[in-house]
Amino acid sequence: MLDLLNQHRTIRKYTDQQIAPELLNQLLETACRASNTGNMQAYSIVFTTDSDLKKQLAPAHFNQPMTIQAPIVLTFCADFNRFTKWCEQRDADPGYDNFQSFMATAIDALIAAQTFCIAAESVGLGICYLGTTTYNAREIIDILKLPKLVVPITTLTVGYPDGLPDQTDRLPLEAIVHSETYKDYSKEDIDNLYNEKENSDFYKQFVLENKKETLAQVFTDIRYSRKNNEFFSDKFLTVLKEQGFLK
Amino acid sequence: MLDLLNQHRTIRKYTDQQIAPELLNQLLETACRASNTGNMQAYSIVFTTDSDLKKQLAPAHFNQPMTIQAPIVLTFCADFNRFTKWCEQRDADPGYDNFQSFMATAIDALIAAQTFCIAAESVGLGICYLGTTTYNAREIIDILKLPKLVVPITTLTVGYPDGLPDQTDRLPLEAIVHSETYKDYSKEDIDNLYNEKENSDFYKQFVLENKKETLAQVFTDIRYSRKNNEFFSDKFLTVLKEQGFLK
Repeated sequence: MLDLLNQHRTIRKYTDQQIAPELLNQLLETACRASNTGNMQAYSIVFTTDSDLKKQLAPAHFNQPMTIQAPIVLTFCADFNRFTKWCEQRDADPGYDNFQSFMATAIDALIAAQTFCIAAESVGLGICYLGTTTYNAREIIDILKLPKLVVPITTLTVGYPDGLPDQTDRLPLEAIVHSETYKDYSKEDIDNLYNEKENSDFYKQFVLENKKETLAQVFTDIRYSRKNNEFFSDKFLTVLKEQGFLK
Repeated sequence: MLDLLNQHRTIRKYTDQQIAPELLNQLLETACRASNTGNMQAYSIVFTTDSDLKKQLAPAHFNQPMTIQAPIVLTFCADFNRFTKWCEQRDADPGYDNFQSFMATAIDALIAAQTFCIAAESVGLGICYLGTTTYNAREIIDILKLPKLVVPITTLTVGYPDGLPDQTDRLPLEAIVHSETYKDYSKEDIDNLYNEKENSDFYKQFVLENKKETLAQVFTDIRYSRKNNEFFSDKFLTVLKEQGFLK
């Protein structure tokens, strides 16, 4: 079981094999067994297999090809709509139109998403997370017809893997893990922790191809720039207001 | 493997057996193999075993007894501190002091957390999520000495289970899952989806014990009240500002 988790790689190419509806159902049941806040199950999962809908979703995911190529696209949503409707029908005053409730349901949606991934991988499927979901939540809301108090948090493309890509590198564990309390990083710590990554042939080539001086510049200037991060921050905060989670 | 996931229950009581450091290390390595945004690995995990520190953390988790009783408490944090420091040391201009970056790293912290849970359960450990982390992030930041651009997102207590509690109920899958696009719930849908839960002896007793008329009122008036949700929303938004993720 640890072996399965340790073998994880993101799968961006899928064979033509479809996922049997019974299998999808089983994986979704398993995802919904995961922990959630107060057993309110305040999240929703929208699965999309229709080609037209996948084509509509693709631009929201920056036209990453797996959005169309994958047999199934799953959008995991923070959702206090259902719970709020239930409360209103039961003489109860729901108070879930706020940021803390958004955090609780976003957390639950993500726990369900990762449980789905591991379940899917255990039966031979491959998955890819699309981090574009919070960038273009507005467009996804319109396409999937998400009502107020529903916000998409992450998207998975799922299918049978076409090939086995190499595993990506990871920083040494001591970069991520702190014992007892947080020990902030000295200049020397940073140099040591990133040394192996920065000196790998793979990343040296990557820096060259991107015409940058350092690997960090590839991230700050190209992949995750301040300008984009700030633009998409404003956009997502507007979505939270429009969907009723922020005043 | 699906069996393991389907057997999941939250474990709130632990035996005295300690978790071997090598095993903890292995589980943390496995958690760090999970998907993350752009392979930036922008999150941190603080594990706490020291009794004094666990006692300090307990009030932040509303003195839930497992905070002290569990051999290990793990706090999963959104963290752009390390990555930002690396960028600054590499002539790169980091732009991660914004809400979209917070979302990306919070998502990654949660994917790692759930992977840790499943890894831990696969070797016979039991886990409990503490949803109090975003309520009292301020206090946790102070106790664990989290610097700017680090915010705790969720906490796990982990240990060897003392007893096997019953599994909690789940809504029917059609309450959570939508095919192709979101189908909003009619009054009748809500009645049907909550029918089994509301008519179970367990929840009837639960409503009586809480001296309420409906199950929904137990949530809105006692467990997750508007007043508390709004109070803790303001508190967490203040934390995001203070830690540098919101302007």
